[in-house]
Amino acid sequence: MPIAVPAELRLIARRGAWLGSTAGHCPGHQQANLVVLPNEAAAEFAAFCARNPKPCPVIEVTPPGDPVPAAAAPDADLRTDLPGYRVYRDGELAERCGDIRSLWRDDLVAFLLGCSFTFEHALVDAGVPLRSVERHSTVPMFVSNLACTPAGRFHGPMVVTMRPIPVLQVDLIRALSADYPHAHGAPVHVGDPQAIGIARLDRPDYGDPVPVGADETPVFWACGVTPQAVAERARLDLMITHEPGQMFVTDIPRERRALPGSGNRSS
Amino acid sequence: MPIAVPAELRLIARRGAWLGSTAGHCPGHQQANLVVLPNEAAAEFAAFCARNPKPCPVIEVTPPGDPVPAAAAPDADLRTDLPGYRVYRDGELAERCGDIRSLWRDDLVAFLLGCSFTFEHALVDAGVPLRSVERHSTVPMFVSNLACTPAGRFHGPMVVTMRPIPVLQVDLIRALSADYPHAHGAPVHVGDPQAIGIARLDRPDYGDPVPVGADETPVFWACGVTPQAVAERARLDLMITHEPGQMFVTDIPRERRALPGSGNRSS
Repeated sequence: MPIAVPAELRLIARRGAWLGSTAGHCPGHQQANLVVLPNEAAAEFAAFCARNPKPCPVIEVTPPGDPVPAAAAPDADLRTDLPGYRVYRDGELAERCGDIRSLWRDDLVAFLLGCSFTFEHALVDAGVPLRSVERHSTVPMFVSNLACTPAGRFHGPMVVTMRPIPVLQVDLIRALSADYPHAHGAPVHVGDPQAIGIARLDRPDYGDPVPVGADETPVFWACGVTPQAVAERARLDLMITHEPGQMFVTDIPRERRALPGSGNRSS
Repeated sequence: MPIAVPAELRLIARRGAWLGSTAGHCPGHQQANLVVLPNEAAAEFAAFCARNPKPCPVIEVTPPGDPVPAAAAPDADLRTDLPGYRVYRDGELAERCGDIRSLWRDDLVAFLLGCSFTFEHALVDAGVPLRSVERHSTVPMFVSNLACTPAGRFHGPMVVTMRPIPVLQVDLIRALSADYPHAHGAPVHVGDPQAIGIARLDRPDYGDPVPVGADETPVFWACGVTPQAVAERARLDLMITHEPGQMFVTDIPRERRALPGSGNRSS
């Protein structure tokens, strides 16, 4: 049965009892990708995210050494509250674990970046069928030939997700997803995969393939795997991310662009 | 006569020949506040901005040592292309100058943050009278009692701008300004100034006072002076900002939320 309350899901993850994806849970709240880097590289990564807001919409950044996302979930701890983590050393996957307290350092900065899980719930609510959701499979992801705008050591192609969408619903999903700039926003491409350098839709670089029906067209969105791929390529001495699909679940309502906290409230 | 093309305005500023405010120029493009900090403090400041997107909407961040805002204006140089700069040392104003090339360091990071000039042009185009624009005066700014969400050394109250708005146009300006999240978005408060800790509207903390008419109500927006005030309070060894009113003029069209560059283009 799906969990509805983010704090409950985080507590289960904190005691190591949540195994697997967070997809389909807490549909009313934003989920986020995690990228943790040394402070030395953090401004450079912030520059990359600011220059590439479609793949890298910044939800929150924490000050060096502080594992509490004060705006996104003030009672959370980013070292324990995700189901799983990946640890990269010199750009290579070195470890997978369920807790990063022993790796935490005073100079580590955490970035929370928007996730398409936020966005998929909104499409489903509007009556758009999403094949990967129906099949409980992981959305297919492809390395496109769309170049990100580089920032220092961070550069590389954009990773995109693909969802087959009924031709008659393309205008609807464009309009709907444009309202979620904090979760990748409008599509980056609609139609011919080869136009963005994707040779075969049945061979995704990540996730599971899905067929595209006769009355459907492939629709491509910027993907939150992009910053991880780019950060791997930069070969930092240490980078920690979430385990793909096992996101950080925030307290931020799905629709809200700005964060909670008095600095952001509208009257 | 107003200049329309950002690159022209920047070149005039670069050769030291632009004296005064950039308000009223390049109405089709976004203008930005500048905050330059050492890399040591940059992730902490990025955290502050991410937690307080209404006063601090991030337009671009540059990698350490790189003065070129590759996404906002790839032919620009942030060290020369603003009409004026302020240099703060240990939180005190130490110098005002028209060029910061001699102060530039390999560890400096520049933040471009959204500015209400972007936003005012849109209101005027929609037929909303703006008193400070009509009078060619600087919009009045007040230190409110709305607390920003802190991040490390960066904390303090939100600075707000005040514009008297005809009561019948309040719903219109709420809706219009909400479409400019990159330029402070919807108001943070409408009506009684004392409700947000402002005792006297005729005594702004910055800018020039304007009267509020009988058929008008004071409307308050988050202000880009907030991050400067907060950064001053953090007493960094070095911080450089634009001279108030003398903004960085970007190549980004006024309406566009995401930045140019292939990482951000919609199909």
